Amino acid sequence: MSRGSRPPPAPWQGIANAVGFAMAEEHLRARWGAKVQDHYTWVIAGDGCLMEGVSQEAIGIAGKQRLSRLMVLWDNNGITIDGKVSLSDVTDQKARFAASGWDVFECDGHDPADIDRAITAAKASPGPAMIACKTHIAIGHAAQDTSKGHGALTDKVQLQAAKDAYGWSGGPFEVPADIKTWWEAVGKRGAAAHAEWQARLNGLSAAKKAEFERVFAAEAPAQLNSAIRAVKKQAVADLPKLATRSASEKVLAAVNPVMPETFAGSADLTGSNNTKTANLGTFSPEDRKGRYMHWGIREHGMAAAMNGMVLHGGVRPYSGTFMAFTDYARPAMRLSALMGVPVIYVMTHDSIGLGEDGPTHQPVEHLAISRATPNTLVLRPADLVEVAECWEIALSQKTTPSVMALSRQNLIAVRKVHSNQNLSAKGAYVLAEATGKRQVILIATGSEVEIAIKAREALQAEGIGTRVVSMPSMELFAAQDAAYRRKILPSGPVRVAIEAGVRQGWDRWLLGERGREAKAAFVGMSTFGASAPYERLYKEFGITPEGTVAAAAKAMV
Amino acid sequence: MSRGSRPPPAPWQGIANAVGFAMAEEHLRARWGAKVQDHYTWVIAGDGCLMEGVSQEAIGIAGKQRLSRLMVLWDNNGITIDGKVSLSDVTDQKARFAASGWDVFECDGHDPADIDRAITAAKASPGPAMIACKTHIAIGHAAQDTSKGHGALTDKVQLQAAKDAYGWSGGPFEVPADIKTWWEAVGKRGAAAHAEWQARLNGLSAAKKAEFERVFAAEAPAQLNSAIRAVKKQAVADLPKLATRSASEKVLAAVNPVMPETFAGSADLTGSNNTKTANLGTFSPEDRKGRYMHWGIREHGMAAAMNGMVLHGGVRPYSGTFMAFTDYARPAMRLSALMGVPVIYVMTHDSIGLGEDGPTHQPVEHLAISRATPNTLVLRPADLVEVAECWEIALSQKTTPSVMALSRQNLIAVRKVHSNQNLSAKGAYVLAEATGKRQVILIATGSEVEIAIKAREALQAEGIGTRVVSMPSMELFAAQDAAYRRKILPSGPVRVAIEAGVRQGWDRWLLGERGREAKAAFVGMSTFGASAPYERLYKEFGITPEGTVAAAAKAMV
Repeated sequence: MSRGSRPPPAPWQGIANAVGFAMAEEHLRARWGAKVQDHYTWVIAGDGCLMEGVSQEAIGIAGKQRLSRLMVLWDNNGITIDGKVSLSDVTDQKARFAASGWDVFECDGHDPADIDRAITAAKASPGPAMIACKTHIAIGHAAQDTSKGHGALTDKVQLQAAKDAYGWSGGPFEVPADIKTWWEAVGKRGAAAHAEWQARLNGLSAAKKAEFERVFAAEAPAQLNSAIRAVKKQAVADLPKLATRSASEKVLAAVNPVMPETFAGSADLTGSNNTKTANLGTFSPEDRKGRYMHWGIREHGMAAAMNGMVLHGGVRPYSGTFMAFTDYARPAMRLSALMGVPVIYVMTHDSIGLGEDGPTHQPVEHLAISRATPNTLVLRPADLVEVAECWEIALSQKTTPSVMALSRQNLIAVRKVHSNQNLSAKGAYVLAEATGKRQVILIATGSEVEIAIKAREALQAEGIGTRVVSMPSMELFAAQDAAYRRKILPSGPVRVAIEAGVRQGWDRWLLGERGREAKAAFVGMSTFGASAPYERLYKEFGITPEGTVAAAAKAMV
Repeated sequence: MSRGSRPPPAPWQGIANAVGFAMAEEHLRARWGAKVQDHYTWVIAGDGCLMEGVSQEAIGIAGKQRLSRLMVLWDNNGITIDGKVSLSDVTDQKARFAASGWDVFECDGHDPADIDRAITAAKASPGPAMIACKTHIAIGHAAQDTSKGHGALTDKVQLQAAKDAYGWSGGPFEVPADIKTWWEAVGKRGAAAHAEWQARLNGLSAAKKAEFERVFAAEAPAQLNSAIRAVKKQAVADLPKLATRSASEKVLAAVNPVMPETFAGSADLTGSNNTKTANLGTFSPEDRKGRYMHWGIREHGMAAAMNGMVLHGGVRPYSGTFMAFTDYARPAMRLSALMGVPVIYVMTHDSIGLGEDGPTHQPVEHLAISRATPNTLVLRPADLVEVAECWEIALSQKTTPSVMALSRQNLIAVRKVHSNQNLSAKGAYVLAEATGKRQVILIATGSEVEIAIKAREALQAEGIGTRVVSMPSMELFAAQDAAYRRKILPSGPVRVAIEAGVRQGWDRWLLGERGREAKAAFVGMSTFGASAPYERLYKEFGITPEGTVAAAAKAMV
């Protein structure tokens, strides 16, 4: 059983992961030199891989970026699970790749010499290369060229026929001497190449070598913490009213200069996601050192390529889209979590606070979707200080992806006193304590924290002692010991959670894991949103200080 | 504010919705005749629409299916939000469409005569047609041919320049008389065409006309209920041990003959999803009456096209993939819910019960994902009787999509007594009552119901009165009145939920909506799965009768 091990990239998006490998290689070669970074990226793609939409996104990115060291061998056997490819597709794949600027080659996929010829030509070509390898599934077997070839090599007679077709006379697990000798030579060649590479790496200055090893180990630099602290100090001095997406841009402006391994981008929403900071340059065939990528309208391809970049190593990608388009990136976001890849997803416009674009663009269930996914850190900061803290948390992850949920709309500053400590790192903390007897605990995240603060003022004015807990991350809070969780959420007071999303995921904190802890209420969404200015939407859906006070009062009865 | 209204198909998957329109039109024309079904499907697609991966899936489906009445006008303005298209793509779109069997045309998108010429040629062509319309965004404005053209027509001077460029002299909301006359003529032409069509429809036999109107109203036929009841009666006679995906095939074999509007399919997993029944035929250019579609490895395209088919009307599509690949179909599944479109998603292999294919293919968070989505019915039946009931529920929906979660592995029959009532319709019901004092309530869905039954036997053997509640649908249970919910889940006894997925979504039923109802425990998953035979996985992850008994005992302390 492979429990706990890192599984390989899933079928169907490997070609997009590979685009990330090839981009990382181009970028790092430009930055570090060919002495220490110099390789091809190889893909074996099936007919199904080329039918999934993400393949087009990958092909488009690679074609535009002229990733000449990306080599796709298409296993052109013309068969899918249901039968012939022609049951569902008549695409001329060579013409399709060529249309996006690829160089296209052909070979007999069962003839090593012909494969070698095609690969040699492909390596010499200036663009990304696709080699159409004509193959026969289950060659030599009765199931040859049929869908049964996928898994039917269990019949002994047929198995022997297949072996005969390949000219293979050995028994199971028997490796002929000449092949063993050949593979050992391959191993020695690899070991020698690695030793030569290590010698070249050792030839770098000590500082450069240490930096190379740091970025490949995905270690955050020592300067990250001081950069974050400086932002936090300035924030409590200024108390700016700003959207958390803008706060994020401020934090990134401080972080990117001290973390040269960051690689930024957006799926065609650069001005909205606020992921671009000064002097990053634009990654392109003309500027391989560029650290900002225009991914195009391709959320899935972007996310899958970022997975590939992290798997390659040496870069720390983050990139943005609207949070509702988690849906488009979702297949790759799940794989970030499953593979333990610390990609950072910058998801702005994270609620009905998006306003006029309406329900297609307003996330409602997407916080719940990411929270339901194992090994995924969902971070929803409330103001500039929390945004800085959440970026520090995300950039310090080595095996967990992060989803930064950021507002479109301006928010008040809620953290007004500087702390060197990263308060968000425990997932939840007391932002404002009750005055008098603690009767209510309001728990909120992100843009709803200011609503909680205003509701607390109203409740306190009526003599109801009210604590406000800011909870930027449920996952981090869940990871604290029981004593800390009990300290933040003691039994007894009524609990009200406020979040402009669905309730799913909140009951654990409202009701307690074993139940019977508290009476509770939830102020949030139970339907899709609507199109209107955001202030009106919050009012229509009752996500207001008044709505929160009413919910608390009802729960107290 | 547009709250409650049906929003239009979202940007970026409209081309795939349109493929569904065109398929429905071809299919219905073949079945009903051109007298009552005869139209083109028109798409205006932007550069961004053609960058999203789903566009390739749509192009592939339309090319293979030779949807000659599908007309795509590509608004080729070369601009996206971030800037020029060339920032992120160099694809030759005409070559790309041609590679998938489309007929390709060009025109000046600002010249009505040239557009008309291209459309006339496109209509005469034998394949689906793409017309590349060269356009200039914000023509005549200072922002012309720049990304600012997306939303910058607010400057009065510039606005006037744009109007001058179009030769438009009228004021705001002023319609010149000649244009008004022309549009009124268009309206009259449309009204006349509709009247002629209505006359042709009236010319059908009364029975045929009623049937046409029934399927376009998405009314289930009277025979559905009797077909379902017959399956249920036979099931309690046979008590078959079978996977719910196989049970689903049995139900569909009874349903499809009495519902000629069903249109089945699979994303290249026909033999695994069990969606194909006898005599459906295969939809293809050679057989437009065919009711089974090989969608290829294209979950998003399939789901979006099904949305289009329902929006078109006259067909009731259902189609399958593995439940983990909800991720790929997710952008369209959200739109089914948002648009109120009753597509049925047949999601088989719905847990770690999938076994050897491992965690990439094992859903863990996907029940939670669909349950988090407003207006989505998640149905997870436990045996053949519940499968029949859930199909009846799904096929009776008019404005809500359904997700049928079905097992790969064989399951015992848990419903042993026939009831004419659809017990699943209330979402949850008492499957086995406690003997003696009721101390424990076990709540389970789908494949875990048999674990609950075995755990109950063990608990009862120790003298602990235990009720088993089968909960095939949380959404339907939530829609019942408080009295019914209280009857099924009374306060007091310890509650244990058993489901081979994440806990998120369960607390509401375990702890009660206002909290303090019950002590509770959950037996399920908190990590991704692993690769092994399914019996071993259930044991490793503790989802067993023994694990359930232990959880109940611990919660009772």
